[in-house]
Parts: sequence; structure tokens; C-alpha cells
Amino acid sequence: MKQIFPGLIAAMALGALPVAAQEAAATPEAAVAVEAVSADVVYIFNTLLFLIGGFLVMWMAAGFAMLEAGLVRSKNVTTQLFKNISLFAIAGIMYWLIGYNLMYPGEWTMPGVLGELFSPKGLDPVGAGVVDDGYSAGSDFFFQLMFCATTASIVSGTLAERIKLWPFMIFTVVLTGIIYPIEASWQWGGGFLSEMGFSDFAGSTLVHAAGGFAALAGAIVLGARYGKFRSDGRMQPMPGSNLALATLGTFILWLGWFGFNGASQLAIGSVNDAADVSRIFVNTNMAASAGAVAAVITTQLMFGKIDLTMVLNGALAGLVSITAEPLTPSIFAAVLIGGVGGAIAVVVVPMLDKLKIDDVVGAIPVHLVAGIWGTLIVPATNPDTSYVTQAIGVIAIGAFVFIVSFAIWTILKMTMGIRVDREAEITGLDISEMGMEAYPDFVQAK
Amino acid sequence: MKQIFPGLIAAMALGALPVAAQEAAATPEAAVAVEAVSADVVYIFNTLLFLIGGFLVMWMAAGFAMLEAGLVRSKNVTTQLFKNISLFAIAGIMYWLIGYNLMYPGEWTMPGVLGELFSPKGLDPVGAGVVDDGYSAGSDFFFQLMFCATTASIVSGTLAERIKLWPFMIFTVVLTGIIYPIEASWQWGGGFLSEMGFSDFAGSTLVHAAGGFAALAGAIVLGARYGKFRSDGRMQPMPGSNLALATLGTFILWLGWFGFNGASQLAIGSVNDAADVSRIFVNTNMAASAGAVAAVITTQLMFGKIDLTMVLNGALAGLVSITAEPLTPSIFAAVLIGGVGGAIAVVVVPMLDKLKIDDVVGAIPVHLVAGIWGTLIVPATNPDTSYVTQAIGVIAIGAFVFIVSFAIWTILKMTMGIRVDREAEITGLDISEMGMEAYPDFVQAK
Amino acid sequence: MKQIFPGLIAAMALGALPVAAQEAAATPEAAVAVEAVSADVVYIFNTLLFLIGGFLVMWMAAGFAMLEAGLVRSKNVTTQLFKNISLFAIAGIMYWLIGYNLMYPGEWTMPGVLGELFSPKGLDPVGAGVVDDGYSAGSDFFFQLMFCATTASIVSGTLAERIKLWPFMIFTVVLTGIIYPIEASWQWGGGFLSEMGFSDFAGSTLVHAAGGFAALAGAIVLGARYGKFRSDGRMQPMPGSNLALATLGTFILWLGWFGFNGASQLAIGSVNDAADVSRIFVNTNMAASAGAVAAVITTQLMFGKIDLTMVLNGALAGLVSITAEPLTPSIFAAVLIGGVGGAIAVVVVPMLDKLKIDDVVGAIPVHLVAGIWGTLIVPATNPDTSYVTQAIGVIAIGAFVFIVSFAIWTILKMTMGIRVDREAEITGLDISEMGMEAYPDFVQAK
Repeated sequence: MKQIFPGLIAAMALGALPVAAQEAAATPEAAVAVEAVSADVVYIFNTLLFLIGGFLVMWMAAGFAMLEAGLVRSKNVTTQLFKNISLFAIAGIMYWLIGYNLMYPGEWTMPGVLGELFSPKGLDPVGAGVVDDGYSAGSDFFFQLMFCATTASIVSGTLAERIKLWPFMIFTVVLTGIIYPIEASWQWGGGFLSEMGFSDFAGSTLVHAAGGFAALAGAIVLGARYGKFRSDGRMQPMPGSNLALATLGTFILWLGWFGFNGASQLAIGSVNDAADVSRIFVNTNMAASAGAVAAVITTQLMFGKIDLTMVLNGALAGLVSITAEPLTPSIFAAVLIGGVGGAIAVVVVPMLDKLKIDDVVGAIPVHLVAGIWGTLIVPATNPDTSYVTQAIGVIAIGAFVFIVSFAIWTILKMTMGIRVDREAEITGLDISEMGMEAYPDFVQAK
Repeated sequence: MKQIFPGLIAAMALGALPVAAQEAAATPEAAVAVEAVSADVVYIFNTLLFLIGGFLVMWMAAGFAMLEAGLVRSKNVTTQLFKNISLFAIAGIMYWLIGYNLMYPGEWTMPGVLGELFSPKGLDPVGAGVVDDGYSAGSDFFFQLMFCATTASIVSGTLAERIKLWPFMIFTVVLTGIIYPIEASWQWGGGFLSEMGFSDFAGSTLVHAAGGFAALAGAIVLGARYGKFRSDGRMQPMPGSNLALATLGTFILWLGWFGFNGASQLAIGSVNDAADVSRIFVNTNMAASAGAVAAVITTQLMFGKIDLTMVLNGALAGLVSITAEPLTPSIFAAVLIGGVGGAIAVVVVPMLDKLKIDDVVGAIPVHLVAGIWGTLIVPATNPDTSYVTQAIGVIAIGAFVFIVSFAIWTILKMTMGIRVDREAEITGLDISEMGMEAYPDFVQAK
Repeated sequence: MKQIFPGLIAAMALGALPVAAQEAAATPEAAVAVEAVSADVVYIFNTLLFLIGGFLVMWMAAGFAMLEAGLVRSKNVTTQLFKNISLFAIAGIMYWLIGYNLMYPGEWTMPGVLGELFSPKGLDPVGAGVVDDGYSAGSDFFFQLMFCATTASIVSGTLAERIKLWPFMIFTVVLTGIIYPIEASWQWGGGFLSEMGFSDFAGSTLVHAAGGFAALAGAIVLGARYGKFRSDGRMQPMPGSNLALATLGTFILWLGWFGFNGASQLAIGSVNDAADVSRIFVNTNMAASAGAVAAVITTQLMFGKIDLTMVLNGALAGLVSITAEPLTPSIFAAVLIGGVGGAIAVVVVPMLDKLKIDDVVGAIPVHLVAGIWGTLIVPATNPDTSYVTQAIGVIAIGAFVFIVSFAIWTILKMTMGIRVDREAEITGLDISEMGMEAYPDFVQAK
């Protein structure tokens, strides 16, 4: 790829000197910095970064809930809301029970009664913070948990409007307790991808594409909504019921992403780390802006009019794209990476339609496809990575998550069934599955 | 209680060694920590914690507004929105005018012209932060104010759909200016409960049960909505008009609670404090997750289907339950405490119905009953407390708030009247009290 | 003005000693403080303040989106949502491409290929934070960008329900790339207003009145909505379609304002700065509370009933009013300043109606008029400023922004046209401009 657009790539790498060179340049200052900030202060700053980043990523769960509630039809809103809050709750329980220890296998300790009842590392006994780690174990657990929950949030939108509640929750249990922790451990737990030199700063692949692969497997096993793809080959539009909520959800996700990417620096206790977190904030915002603008232009050109939901997804795709490497790109590169991501999110939609894959909220273009794009483009700005290794990482995680998810969805389908019957789907899941309408006071259009 | 479930209680206390023992264990490190962080840096960290915590708790006011707007019928939404923003504004004014000085009586200074016009402690004259306090007075005032406002927010939901605007606002003036500050001073102002050894870390009783008691008194004096409890003993369901808003409100409250509980540590300027704040974040999240999951299971078992609004209240009840002691429980104990709280919130609802107490949004199960549960269970994980003292605290605060609130509601009822007439109630308060519909463009179901 | 209400003004200045005197009083402590916090720690704290403040101000973009989506009629909601997310994206691109370098002209460096492709100061090459600045360049860029975006957000509400999409976006390009950066550079870029002693702490005039002037120019060129001002001189009410969203938007803005004003202190790396940021948080909240309460009272007196949308605007006007000087006022002064602002926002509305200026969401009373009020009252509490200089600043910025905006709107009108035709306006922009309804499942009232 570097051979194809040498000038462009050179421009993208501007301001992104080889890390070794930078470290050399920064050495005199860094030395002073290390001396000037005591280990305790570093510990407090880093912990604060995890806590702030963690609550921002937690807020993304609300963003997914609003985005999806806005993009489904009004007869399925209660169900979609329920899935979003319950998956977040389940992720908390499962990541504590199994996931965290599975993801960081070296740290799986089982002292005392049942390993302090599964407590990950005991989370620093009260009043005894261990300064050597550089941050509190509790803040790290809190932050990592939110990433696990995000992965599950991605799945729920794709499968909306026809999936049964309990199989969805069972899949969430497996995804958050086992699938995500295993693949994430390959990189963030010091596993084989990490050792190969794979690079995925905040999880374009580990979180977003992984969630997208799980969603894709589910969409294939589950099938499209009744009436979505007509026998004449055309597609029946099923517009979202509340674009104000969808837009709110996008803004929430945009906000939360500063925590997602920024706190993935994992440290803000030195001048260099603080400067890096700031760069990440800027690049994250620029990629989102560029993704939105690219979607405006792409939809205007492709459809002759601007499509709001595509613009929302364009912004999100920009965010997903920059997540694999929000630190090394120059601002210009961040704009390019995010802009291409935003355009991808638009052009992939008709391809999925052709394949008759019914993705209700567009999570596959946004999280899966833009996630892969973001991961593969990392070497354009980060000289410590290679296109081959990035591709291997995507393939390994994609194959694992897709195959395991496909198997689980298939088992669930063959045992308890994963899909409501046709009449229930036409009535809407809110009445058929939950017996509770989201907007009971409002007269609904037929 | 310890005698009843000795094994369970022992498990809950895991990782919660007696504080004295912990301090001994932590001493060598703590000594280093205290030396390594200068008083000025501690001051800045602590102030930052109050400011971040404060804006997160401020955000809870929006959470209550959305939760309540979503759970009332569409004809009362404008009124409910107005009550929520006006009570927050009133709380700000009253807590400054009277409340703060009443709550911290030792600090009530009246120098110069009218005590610098009621300015609490002058809030550090510009450019003269006093480092000795360990944090800025302004940040403390900001944080404490938000707790006062939260107490008022709890009341508004219970009394929805039939209360007049002005009596509600007058009650809010008294609650935020006098009732809350007095009872809160008993503990946080160094009063008699504090001296007795009562423990309520972030306010399960001082804030949540207190708000719940004020709401309960109001609900009794006000009476149920017209048609709610039918003569045949059955209850008329009056479903909320917008479950998307109710879910959004719950997510907002969940997010804000990290500030509510986390910043109640009051300090993050040492390694130990940073580790403790992190534990609090984790326990707060686990209790909420467990509360939601418990409500899923409980509603499925009790009603044969999952009830979204109960799940939302389950998460909130989990949060309320852990608020009295989010620091000493192990994660496992936090899950138990929150899970029981979530189940309580579900099972209390039919009890209130039997008593013909009409609590529109379920604030009494969530804030009052789960708040008491959380306060009473503190000694299971915190060995410095006793069940007797905890019970005394709940009774003292409950009796005071309930009796004074009951008296004020009764006086308001006898003087200006607190309830709209039947016709206005059937029409809806938005037309009858405010002359402004919340959703004028949408055709409403009869 | 000081001559008119000497007692009142004296009261307002309480706790606001001349800065010189305060500095003298604070010297012994300040000296210690400066010694105790290392340059690196100061850098990290300040950077953190910019990042937290920046993401809070970013969140205000969502607040404007929800406020405006709630205050327009349902047939224009999709368009209003689109304008809000696209203007935020455009602001990001334009402020990077041109704005930032235009605003801080001394720092406009153009080394290497196209000035590192417009990268403002290169945003600290990775791993090379420069401690001398006292904060990271990236965090400053991030924070300043959000102010630029806020200015654009203010414009979109006023012009709702009849403006074409593309001319609006083109105006946003010019506003965020050129108009705002030029006028902001006069003060914050060290320009002539700054040298004159003009004072606008966080932008009552530079951001809010400027946005309001651009909106006013647009409203005049664009004309009122069809049917708004009837031939018999009366006004046709066109109520907002979703007051829950409007209230949510107001709460979001209230929250975001803590970042807007608080982080405009630009530093939190010393005890004095931390205390000042805290005062700013408190004063910001008190002004908003007072603005809301003033609007409650004013609408009750003027119209015989409380008007929720006016109360929301009252809170916002309180916030705008205190933005010019949130630091020096005592709490009492903040209450007065915000309260007057809230009342202004109410009484200006009928005046605009008389002038047949159609401001759909009330942005002109809130941001323009209350912004001017806040700027002019600064000398009442800040002795380093003068009423004359404040007036000059308002006039200079107002004249520049209004004239340039008026010219651009006129050029756009004469070339591509800025207004949809009458039929499209009656149908609603969502169908006519975007082909996508915001609430397609709900039956709309005629």
C-alpha cells in the first residue's frame, strides 16, 4: 500500500516520527519528567484516567440504547431498550465472574475461599493501594469491564426486531464471559497477537470488529426480518421510529469515545502521556467529524439527498476507524482515516442488502467493516507495525469470533429457538415478548 | 443477623478486614505516600474529585427528569419536566441561602454585611485558596448542593399527575432549605448520629430514604390518582408514556452515581484514597448490574414476563442499596447487596398497591425501601458499625423527615390546597396547570 | 451604573476584592504553592482540565441538538438534527484547516509540507510534550475547537423550519473557519480588545452574542416562517413538538457549561487555580438556578401561568449572563446577574415578535441579549474592567459579526437562495429537503 500512494502515506506519517527517534528526542525532558512526578502522583493520575475513561465508556451503553431505540420501529422499542440495559448488567456480572481472569490469565489468582469469591485480584484491599502497578487494580477492572460491555452492545442492534429475549441474553453471557475475554487476551492479555506485533490501540478489531463478527454470525443464523427482502429483489425500507433518539445516541457515543480511546493510553502521569492523551482526543474528534462529512457527501452523490441515519453511522464509522491507532496519525491522517471510514459505512450498506443480510441499525458496516479498515491502515502512520501482522490479527480474531458465535447461535436455534414466530414479529416484540408498549399514549401509524 | 447466615456474612466481609488491621498493613506504604504527595497536590486532586463528582451528580437531575417524564402519561409530561428543572433551581438557591449553613453549623459565620450576603464561608476569596482544608470550599459546597437537590428530585416522581405546582415548589423550598440540611447535619455535619457511630457513606438513608419518606408523607396526604385503585380492589394500570426516556433516565442516574458514591470518599489525593475510589466505582457498578439482573429474574418468576420498568427500578435500587457502604464490601458482597435491593424494589410494589399508596414512578420501593436495606446491611461488611446504631439512624431520620413532611403537606393542603380538581386531573396537568402540551404534534390515544 | 445602585454594587463586589489586594493577601501561601507543585504536575493538571472541559463543551453540541429538536415542529425535526450534527462536524474540520491558526496568529507556523498539512503547531509530536507551555497544545486545540462549534450551534435554532440545508452548511463553513476565529482573536488571540482591557472570561460576547448576531442577521435576511406573523398583527403560536427533548437539551447545556466556564480558567495546577475553578462552578450553577427561578416568576406575572420553554431559556440565559465573568462575583452577585439574565430572556421575546423577527428557539434573547447583559455588567464585580471598554467590545464584535454575516446571508440568498419554497415549508423540511421523517410511526396532528 505504501507503494501505491507514497506521497499521501508520507503526508500521513508527518508528525509521526518513528517512535525510537521520538524517544531519543524526548529523552532529556522525559528524564526530568520522571523525576518530577512522584510514583504516588503518577498512580493517582493514572487511576483518575481509568475512572474518567471508564465512566465515559459506560455512558456509551446509553448511547447504543438510544441509537438502537431510535432506529427500530416503535413496536420493538421496549424490547430493544431492555436488551441494552440487561446486556450491560450481564456484562458486569460475567466479566467479574469469568471474563477478567480469563483475559489476564497470568493474574488469575485463587487464594482463600474460592479465590475471594472470584474477585479479580481482590481489587486492592481497602486502604492498601499498591503503588507499584502505577494505577489501582479497581480502576483498571472498571475500565476493562466497559470494553467488554461495548462488545455486547454492538450485537444487539443488528439482531433487533425478530430475536427472542432469552437466547439473546444467553449469547450475551457467553460473549462477555468467554468469547470476548479470550480474543482480547490474545492482544491485551499478552497473548500471541501481542507477541507477533499486532497493534490495536483501543480495539477497532478487538472490540468493534469482534462485536460486528458476532452480530454477523447472528444475522445469518437468524435470517432477515419478515418482508425486508422482497421476492422481486427490492428491499422494503423499515425506517427508524425516532431519529431524535438516534442522534442523541450518536452524540453520546461520540462523547464516550474520548474515554474509549483517550484512556486506552493507560497513563496520564507524565508530560508525554498527557500530551499523547490530548492528541488522541483531537484525532478521535477529527476522525468522527470527517466520517460525518464523508457520509454527507457520499449520500448526496449516491442517493441525490443527504441521509441522516447514514451521517450518524458515518460519524460512528469515523470513530471506529481511528480506534486502532488514534495516537500516531497526524491530524490530516486522522481526517483521512475517519473520512474513508465514513464513506465505507455508506457504501457497504447496499452490499449487505444484496447478500440479504439484515442489519437493523447498520452495526456491521460501522463496527465490523470500518473496524477492519482502521486496523489495516495502522501501518500507514505507525512504523512499528506491518500490514501482514495487522491482517493476521483481523483474520484470527474474525475467524474465532465468527465461528464460535455461529456455533452458539446455531445451537441456540436448534434447542430453544432464537426467533419469534411470524405473527409475533408483525405484531412487534414489545407486545408479543414483553407485553409492554414503549409509547402507549401515542396513536401509531399502520 | 450475623448469627443467621454466618458463612454468607463471612464471605461478604472477605477483603474487608477490620480497618485497623488494614491500616496497620498499609502503614509502611501509606507513610511513603503521605510524604510523596505535597499538600498542594492533594488539595488539587481532592478539589478535582469534588468538581467531577459534583457535575456527575448534577447530571442525575436530568436523569430524574427523563425517568419521570417517561413514566408519567403524556398529558402530564410538561408539568413533570417543569417540576424537575424548577426543583433543581430552587435547591440551588435554598441550599445557599439557608441549607449549607444549617447543615454545617460550626461553620456558620456571619461576618461583615449580612454574612457576606449568606455566602457559605465566602467560598475562598478569589485567588486565596486555603490549603489547610485539603480541598476548596467552593468545590465542597458544589458537591454538597447536588446531594440536597437529589433529595428533592426523589419526591417529585411519587407525587406526579395530581399535585399542584406551587405547593410542590413551596415544599421543595422547605425540604432543600431546612428538612434535608437538618437531618443531614446529624451525620455529615458532625451531629449526634455521627457521634453514635452511625454510618451512611454516601446517603442511602440521608438522601434516598429521606427523599422517600418525604414522598411517602406526600403520597398519603395527597391520595391516589383518580381511578388508580378501583372499588373492586383491583388496580388500574397507568403505563408510562415513553419508555425510551425512562431508560435514558436510568442510564443517566447510573452514570451520575459514580460521582455520587465515588466522590463521597471526599479525597483522592493519596494512593489509598485513589484505590478506594476505584473500589467504590466497581462496587457501585456491580450492585446496579445485580439489581437489574435480580429484577429480570424476579419479574419473570412473579409475573411470567420481564417488566422493563421494574428492571430499570431494579438497577436503581441496586445503586441505592450500595450507597450506604460502597467501600468495604467485596465485589461478591456488592452483588448480593445490590441484587437483594433489586428484588426488594419489585416485591414492594404490590405491597404499596395493597396499602393504596400511589407512587407513580416507584420512588418509594427504590429510594426508601432499598435505602433502608442498604443502610441496615452495612455492618455485614463494615465491622466498625452495628446493626442497632444503623437502625437508630434510619428511625431517627425517617421519623423526623416523615413527621415534618407530613405536617407541611397537611398545612399546605388545608391552606392553599395541594391537589388539582378531578376534571383537571383527567384532562391532564399539562393543559390544566401549565397550558402547554409536551407533544402537541402527536395524536394521543384515548 | 455604579452611581445608580451604589449599595447593591458594593454588595456584589463583596468577596471580590481588587485582584491586586487579593494577590498581596495570598502571596505567602501562593509562594509555597508554586514551590510545591512541580512544572510537570502543573502541566498534567492543566491538560486534564482542558480535556475534561473540552468533552463537557462537546456535550453541549448534543444539548443544542436536543433543545432545538424539541422546540421545532415534528415535520422539521430530522432536518434540525442533521444541521446540528453536521455543523459540529464542519466546525471540527474548518477550525483545524483555518480557524485555529487565524485565531492565534502569532502561532501560525508553516514548516515543512503545507505546514504539516495545517496541523496547528503540530500538536506536540508523539512522546514530546513541551512542559514550558504549562499544558499540551492538543488539549488546548481540543478545548478551543469546542467553543468554535458552540458559536455555530447557536445559529441553527433561530433559522429553523425554513432554511435550506446547503446554504446553512456553507454559512457554517465561513462562521467556524473565518468569522468566529477573527473576532475571537481580538480578545483571546491577544488582539486589540485584549490590549484595551476588554474582559470576557468564557465568551458571553465572543461566543454567545457572536452566535446570536450571526443568527439575527440570518433571521432578518431569511424572513419569518410562513404564517408566523398574521396580517392582523397577532402572532401564530407554533409550539415545539417534544418538550422532553427540549428539557433534556437544557440539562445537557447546564452540565456542559461547567466545562465551558470552569475550564476557561485555563489552569488548575495550583491551589489558587483550583479554588477559582470551584468558585466558577458554583457561580455558574447559581446563575442558572436564578435565571430559571426568575423566568418562573416573570412568566407567572406576565402571562398568568408558568411557561416551561421560557423557564428553560431562563436557565440558559442565566448561564450566558455569568459567562463573561464567573470568577469575581460573590454568590449573591452571581444570583443577581443570572436572575436578571433569566428575566431578560422572557421580556425580550415579545419585543422580537413586534419587530417580526422569527427566532424559532429563542436563541437571540438567550445568547445575544443575555450575552450583552453579562458582558456589560462585568465591571460591577471586576474592578479591573470598565463599562466603556466592555461596551466597545460588544459593539466591535457585534458590528463585525452582524455585518459580515448579513453580507454572507445576502450573497447566499442572491445566488443559490437560502429559503425553501412555501409549499416545502408547509410540508415540512423533513420531507421536502431530506425525504426522511423523524417520527414515521406516529400519527401527526394536522
